[in-house]
Amino acid sequence: MVQLGLVGLGKMGFNMRERLRAAGHEVVGYDRNPEVSDTGSLAELVDRLDSPRIVWVMVPAGEPTRQTVVEFSELLREGDLLIDGGNSKFTDDKINAELLAAKGIGYLDVGVSGGVWGRENGYGLMVGGAESDVARAMPIFDALRPEGPREEGFSHAGSVGAGHYAKMVHNGIEYGLMQAYAEGFELLEAAKMVDNVPQVIKGWQRGTVVRSWLLELLVRALDEDPELDDLEGYVEDSGEGRWTLEEAINNSVPAPVISAALFARFASRQEDSAAMRAVAALRNQFGGHAVRKVGE
Amino acid sequence: MVQLGLVGLGKMGFNMRERLRAAGHEVVGYDRNPEVSDTGSLAELVDRLDSPRIVWVMVPAGEPTRQTVVEFSELLREGDLLIDGGNSKFTDDKINAELLAAKGIGYLDVGVSGGVWGRENGYGLMVGGAESDVARAMPIFDALRPEGPREEGFSHAGSVGAGHYAKMVHNGIEYGLMQAYAEGFELLEAAKMVDNVPQVIKGWQRGTVVRSWLLELLVRALDEDPELDDLEGYVEDSGEGRWTLEEAINNSVPAPVISAALFARFASRQEDSAAMRAVAALRNQFGGHAVRKVGE
Amino acid sequence: MVQLGLVGLGKMGFNMRERLRAAGHEVVGYDRNPEVSDTGSLAELVDRLDSPRIVWVMVPAGEPTRQTVVEFSELLREGDLLIDGGNSKFTDDKINAELLAAKGIGYLDVGVSGGVWGRENGYGLMVGGAESDVARAMPIFDALRPEGPREEGFSHAGSVGAGHYAKMVHNGIEYGLMQAYAEGFELLEAAKMVDNVPQVIKGWQRGTVVRSWLLELLVRALDEDPELDDLEGYVEDSGEGRWTLEEAINNSVPAPVISAALFARFASRQEDSAAMRAVAALRNQFGGHAVRKVGE
Amino acid sequence: MVQLGLVGLGKMGFNMRERLRAAGHEVVGYDRNPEVSDTGSLAELVDRLDSPRIVWVMVPAGEPTRQTVVEFSELLREGDLLIDGGNSKFTDDKINAELLAAKGIGYLDVGVSGGVWGRENGYGLMVGGAESDVARAMPIFDALRPEGPREEGFSHAGSVGAGHYAKMVHNGIEYGLMQAYAEGFELLEAAKMVDNVPQVIKGWQRGTVVRSWLLELLVRALDEDPELDDLEGYVEDSGEGRWTLEEAINNSVPAPVISAALFARFASRQEDSAAMRAVAALRNQFGGHAVRKVGE
Repeated sequence: MVQLGLVGLGKMGFNMRERLRAAGHEVVGYDRNPEVSDTGSLAELVDRLDSPRIVWVMVPAGEPTRQTVVEFSELLREGDLLIDGGNSKFTDDKINAELLAAKGIGYLDVGVSGGVWGRENGYGLMVGGAESDVARAMPIFDALRPEGPREEGFSHAGSVGAGHYAKMVHNGIEYGLMQAYAEGFELLEAAKMVDNVPQVIKGWQRGTVVRSWLLELLVRALDEDPELDDLEGYVEDSGEGRWTLEEAINNSVPAPVISAALFARFASRQEDSAAMRAVAALRNQFGGHAVRKVGE
Repeated sequence: MVQLGLVGLGKMGFNMRERLRAAGHEVVGYDRNPEVSDTGSLAELVDRLDSPRIVWVMVPAGEPTRQTVVEFSELLREGDLLIDGGNSKFTDDKINAELLAAKGIGYLDVGVSGGVWGRENGYGLMVGGAESDVARAMPIFDALRPEGPREEGFSHAGSVGAGHYAKMVHNGIEYGLMQAYAEGFELLEAAKMVDNVPQVIKGWQRGTVVRSWLLELLVRALDEDPELDDLEGYVEDSGEGRWTLEEAINNSVPAPVISAALFARFASRQEDSAAMRAVAALRNQFGGHAVRKVGE
Repeated sequence: MVQLGLVGLGKMGFNMRERLRAAGHEVVGYDRNPEVSDTGSLAELVDRLDSPRIVWVMVPAGEPTRQTVVEFSELLREGDLLIDGGNSKFTDDKINAELLAAKGIGYLDVGVSGGVWGRENGYGLMVGGAESDVARAMPIFDALRPEGPREEGFSHAGSVGAGHYAKMVHNGIEYGLMQAYAEGFELLEAAKMVDNVPQVIKGWQRGTVVRSWLLELLVRALDEDPELDDLEGYVEDSGEGRWTLEEAINNSVPAPVISAALFARFASRQEDSAAMRAVAALRNQFGGHAVRKVGE
Repeated sequence: MVQLGLVGLGKMGFNMRERLRAAGHEVVGYDRNPEVSDTGSLAELVDRLDSPRIVWVMVPAGEPTRQTVVEFSELLREGDLLIDGGNSKFTDDKINAELLAAKGIGYLDVGVSGGVWGRENGYGLMVGGAESDVARAMPIFDALRPEGPREEGFSHAGSVGAGHYAKMVHNGIEYGLMQAYAEGFELLEAAKMVDNVPQVIKGWQRGTVVRSWLLELLVRALDEDPELDDLEGYVEDSGEGRWTLEEAINNSVPAPVISAALFARFASRQEDSAAMRAVAALRNQFGGHAVRKVGE
């Protein structure tokens, strides 16, 4: 059994603490929310861990993660190991690793997939960093990852940054998969050629080529709301789709599906589209085509 | 000078009658609207024309055009010539031509571009049919087409159907061009890196690679409404974009730009997207991500 | 146990006969290839079945299926039932059903998914037609579909045509899913940020959001050929992606992901792209940009 | 008449020097190629200009431009003005401007469009920087821009960076426009419904909605090579399309057409597509579909 400091006890971190404790590990958690926190501060968390320490940062990507790493660079000691399990951009990892390496502190970046289901099913893990650091944290990874062969739910993807890179591409693919199902759902709904769309989709869960975990989730959603009409078609994006597309650009890789999925999200959040106002204006100019004026 | 029967005196047909008359041709027009019609019926129109007659049909594509052709197949006589100048699907042309050929009546299909500006600027013309029929109608084509070399505003594209096919592809291209300008406009608006978007676009009219007639129309629209915010971003499509995409499919031609432009129009007309509701539902299922519920 | 006539013993039909026989049903098969056929002709097949008969047609979509249905319309008798399990276009089903109904013969259209794995795993089934015909064929469907709850691998999607419609949309989604994984794979390969791409993809099989049967197949393919470089990036399409896109157009449903996946296949089969020759020509015209000339 | 130092006498700079001299301005040019250079070094160029100087940098974007600006920051004096007319990324402009401002040297960024035709037709100009610097360089801008109203071929787009930003979006639009024509060309070529594709396209030059300068260039290209089959469908990209797409991502602007045009270029340069090898592998895995193996 190992001892772990875990910072960030939101939807992901809270469940991970549960899963780790269920596996017999000792977890000392910190969160700004005192109701879920085991300690009052990062400093107290560090004090409560035996040397050499392992701390896992599970806070929002970007400034919050960067800030937490900087604080830990002051609090941790040579030989300790910090793991960033958040959805950080892979370019942050090198910065974090160098800051910590200057003090003899190890660094791993881990892409964690599985969402709220991870507590029960285990989390898919993609890890970047040094082999020795990976080996040291393996008991934690083994507790977090799903049952079954390790290599089917865990990979040591490469050196620092590779874990978040693999997770970024994973999420880019995820965008595409979701949009593919979504387009099929909309077509079935619109065409009215099948009598019961949820029943058809439910029937795809076994034997078909499109069976997947996402499909099972779609079936669950349709069980609760068969036309999904309690929801608005408004979809956020958390950054990883954008980074995947940036990387596609940087590497001259055509990514029409991933970009289409990202743009569909952008468009879903627009009340009105400036681009389509321009198209409407053009049609009106050359053809005298009717346009819809605001307020009419 | 020639004599022409012209059926359909809407935005296009009305202006074409004006342009033809200004060129000295005799035009007998018919429209269901008696205020603009020169005759009370198709039969009367046929009576008023000297044999061999030329009639030009300029009514909405599909059933209205098909019906008018059928009526003319009863009214016209051997040696007459019928021209369909509407936005008909090219597959209708063969049907029309065969019906008329059985009675010895000639047929030309003409794609007419230029919109409401055609009266002043002339119309771009793409013609399908037999060489002899084209030659016979040439005085009309010459009056309708723009000033300048004939081959720059007119083409005899091929046999029956080729005129509407060329026009269909023309319109598919048009969709793509409009969407390209529209995306650029939206990005300039959104990024707020240039102080005055209409001024920048106005400055693209001379010397740049993107100068075009559509750009001039965009400048006109922006002169009237600099942020285009009197309009809604709601855009109809008239069929030719769809047919172009169908033909791309039939011919295994990748058409990512034309399809993107068409889909942007479809999306512009949706109050809410079933597809994006499905994506929102999936994110909620796996990640517990917040969704927008209707009425909240 | 029921008795079934099965026409077409290729990759799909052959395996289905095996699975049905393993379940205890009597199958009389016919194929043009005498080595696999149980009978010498369709007429002999019909003779060998007890009235009322059920025959399952599993031959290539389009003309071969249409022709087989026409032949059976002469051979079968009132009260018999014909099932088309091929990848027929849904618009063929109404024609088939009407032809057979005129002779009192029932008709079901069945979309069958699962490929070469169906023999072992069972086939996902989507059925269109009358409730009574579905009930009559249910023992066959139960033998063909996967183990587990019937509604997870089988649906009665609606009236005639609905089964093939559901299968068509299923395949459209499949195109999108495959392209999403493919783009992710190419980016991982190109970016060289992860050390071992197949290992990362293998590690996505458990716990992640992107886990699916297709992902497992990708892992299998990478096990055999880690960079997939024994293959050419040349991909056929069998029609259902095209029909899905046509239906998206007909129903004004934006389908950017499915169309992108289809166009990627079209492009994969081109030795050279006329469109990109046009773009190269334009760049050369305005910018004097270098172009690659054939043979240089 | 004004005096200008001009660095970089390639395709663009050489022609600009000609146009400026034809307008009566004094141009002292420098290029690494002594055959076209008027001076032996940047230092000599600076010496030959009267104070306060204006120098125009017209060298490749990125490192060459950055290096040239750094060198000039040592050579120029307070009150001088440096203009970057290259295709620099807009983010470089702030860096350049600050470096120069620290020494009292002014800075303008200018997007220059028009390619090899600019010498004769004039160049479309988009300028970023301070009003007073713009006013000072206006005689140069007036000589470079096309005849006609200044605001139709020139814009002062905003503060430093705005000129290159406007040019970047211009080029993004250009990508989309070119791809739209290209897809139409390919469809006309593939469908064989029109007899003479170049003739149809030539006939679009007057009166149609798609008429543009790019269309005229396509006509020129087709005059020289009617099927464009002397060329390979291999298309470079110079960076601005990528940056436009990055900016679309940064600003949550859907850009399906511009991205499709960029990805088509990426794909045009691939001998074989890793993504499509993955799709082929998947089809082979589930369906036993034939694949093309390398060397077969």
